[in-house]
Amino acid sequence: MISLEQTAKSLLEHDNILLIAHVFPDGDTLGSCLGLCHALQDLGKHVRMTCFHTIPSTFDYLFEGLDQEDFEEQYIVTVDVADLGLIGVGEEKYGHMIDLCIDHHATNRIAIENKYVRPSAAACAEIIFDLIGLLNTPITPVIAACLYTGISTDTGCFRFSNVTGYTHYVASQLMKLDYDFETINRILFEERSRARIELEAALFGSMRYYYQDRCAVAVISQELLQKTGATEADLDGITGLPRTIRGVLVGVTLRECEDGKYKVSVRTHEPYDAAAICAQFGGGGHVRAAGCTVSGKTAQELEQEMLHVIKGVLGEI
Amino acid sequence: MISLEQTAKSLLEHDNILLIAHVFPDGDTLGSCLGLCHALQDLGKHVRMTCFHTIPSTFDYLFEGLDQEDFEEQYIVTVDVADLGLIGVGEEKYGHMIDLCIDHHATNRIAIENKYVRPSAAACAEIIFDLIGLLNTPITPVIAACLYTGISTDTGCFRFSNVTGYTHYVASQLMKLDYDFETINRILFEERSRARIELEAALFGSMRYYYQDRCAVAVISQELLQKTGATEADLDGITGLPRTIRGVLVGVTLRECEDGKYKVSVRTHEPYDAAAICAQFGGGGHVRAAGCTVSGKTAQELEQEMLHVIKGVLGEI
Repeated sequence: MISLEQTAKSLLEHDNILLIAHVFPDGDTLGSCLGLCHALQDLGKHVRMTCFHTIPSTFDYLFEGLDQEDFEEQYIVTVDVADLGLIGVGEEKYGHMIDLCIDHHATNRIAIENKYVRPSAAACAEIIFDLIGLLNTPITPVIAACLYTGISTDTGCFRFSNVTGYTHYVASQLMKLDYDFETINRILFEERSRARIELEAALFGSMRYYYQDRCAVAVISQELLQKTGATEADLDGITGLPRTIRGVLVGVTLRECEDGKYKVSVRTHEPYDAAAICAQFGGGGHVRAAGCTVSGKTAQELEQEMLHVIKGVLGEI
Repeated sequence: MISLEQTAKSLLEHDNILLIAHVFPDGDTLGSCLGLCHALQDLGKHVRMTCFHTIPSTFDYLFEGLDQEDFEEQYIVTVDVADLGLIGVGEEKYGHMIDLCIDHHATNRIAIENKYVRPSAAACAEIIFDLIGLLNTPITPVIAACLYTGISTDTGCFRFSNVTGYTHYVASQLMKLDYDFETINRILFEERSRARIELEAALFGSMRYYYQDRCAVAVISQELLQKTGATEADLDGITGLPRTIRGVLVGVTLRECEDGKYKVSVRTHEPYDAAAICAQFGGGGHVRAAGCTVSGKTAQELEQEMLHVIKGVLGEI
């Protein structure tokens, strides 16, 4: 581990820098990479970013006006990447070439000396904000939009428990710049595709409630996915929906896979243990969010078996 | 108009204080009243708050542990109230007795000398935060929860364009206290009633799309309201939903009233003028959010007439 001052020094001492984002890119890995990319380019350096995965079109606005320069890379930096496996197919070429790692995941497993990890940061973008200060180059409106995107994404727009006073402090500084944070939040948190809307309508319309409405079960069948034309991006966060219904303490989503298996997601409120429920079906996870994969059963059979377990759990407390 | 210092002095010089919230109470008027109520009680004063309107059960958590003292009121303060009409039936008794007015609405029309209005504040709670500092009493966790609720409510959890750097600064200070902001945000922004969920499912399921999906129309019939058991609270913000669909530039909601009239809401994205569309039907409003009330037509007839106007508007640009 190195200090943030040493991190800044390493960047200032090098040129022809490649910044690598993680696969299944989100607003934090992209915003952090791009914010740092702009800042280093503003210092006259040759920098570009890469991600070995399709970037959702939601984030197109982050790339407006970006100069993705062509040069022979001499300094390789991972940003918001907790594990080398998360750079995807880039691991084969770059896995043993990482010069610097900047991250906020407590679980970071990249085994290099030049590593700066701050687990208290709600978003990697918080770290990049401080880093740019040490690089002694100004936060421009373009950089502010990138870093705001990172923070807003990783905190669910300041809703999640990872938010700290420092998160809001960084946001207060970023608000001094002139960029359209309202549109960013609309894109990230309000807009939904027509396919997603129709999927939600079908899910909510067919939701089943049990045990005085304390348990809600939704089924996402292959037929429904085909009918609505929903893509993987449209399914983001959908497993959390049953639990958002007032009074529901255990929310279950059964998603039919192409091979006929079911991916089960269980989300709970206090004090119910989602991981314990999924453990009964060979799965696991966190206390409030867990999952399992079950084969050889119909949705109806699986639902009945899950309900049997959930009934016991709800009855116990 | 008086200064915030004079506002603090007025409060310090008086006792037996009644704080009045506005009707159709939201998290800001309630959080601001209650935050100030606790702070003044902490100073040993007799204070209570009142609202001449039913308070949604969503806000029950704000009232936990509150001591609503009984005393003869000697100093009447409105908080987040832009007009005397907004204290509801309390206007008759208190309309001419207001001693102090604290507000953030630029449109404030309460005609008294002892008035502090800061239109740059995203929420009235921002002002109360500063005021409590001048009262020289600490922000406790209970007060922080009240003020956070106010800010979070009025900014849509920091999403809206009214957010400033100062809004995030106040939030960063409130985060230093130990209260459960994550649960507050869940109650305010995530949880929905089963009736609301079923209403949304029906609305989204029956949504009609026109003009290359740039216009979406939803109808809320009396039959649907009765079937889902939705109350007024369940309808909050529902008129904004059609416009949240990606690609929709003009979102229309037709809500059938008990007397057979239709309340029409139009929401637009740039550059389309919602008020101009509604003006064709005798209504009006803001550029992006407007409405009108139409009688003597079926939903189908009204929809066709609206589409005729909207087609012209969409075709023009």
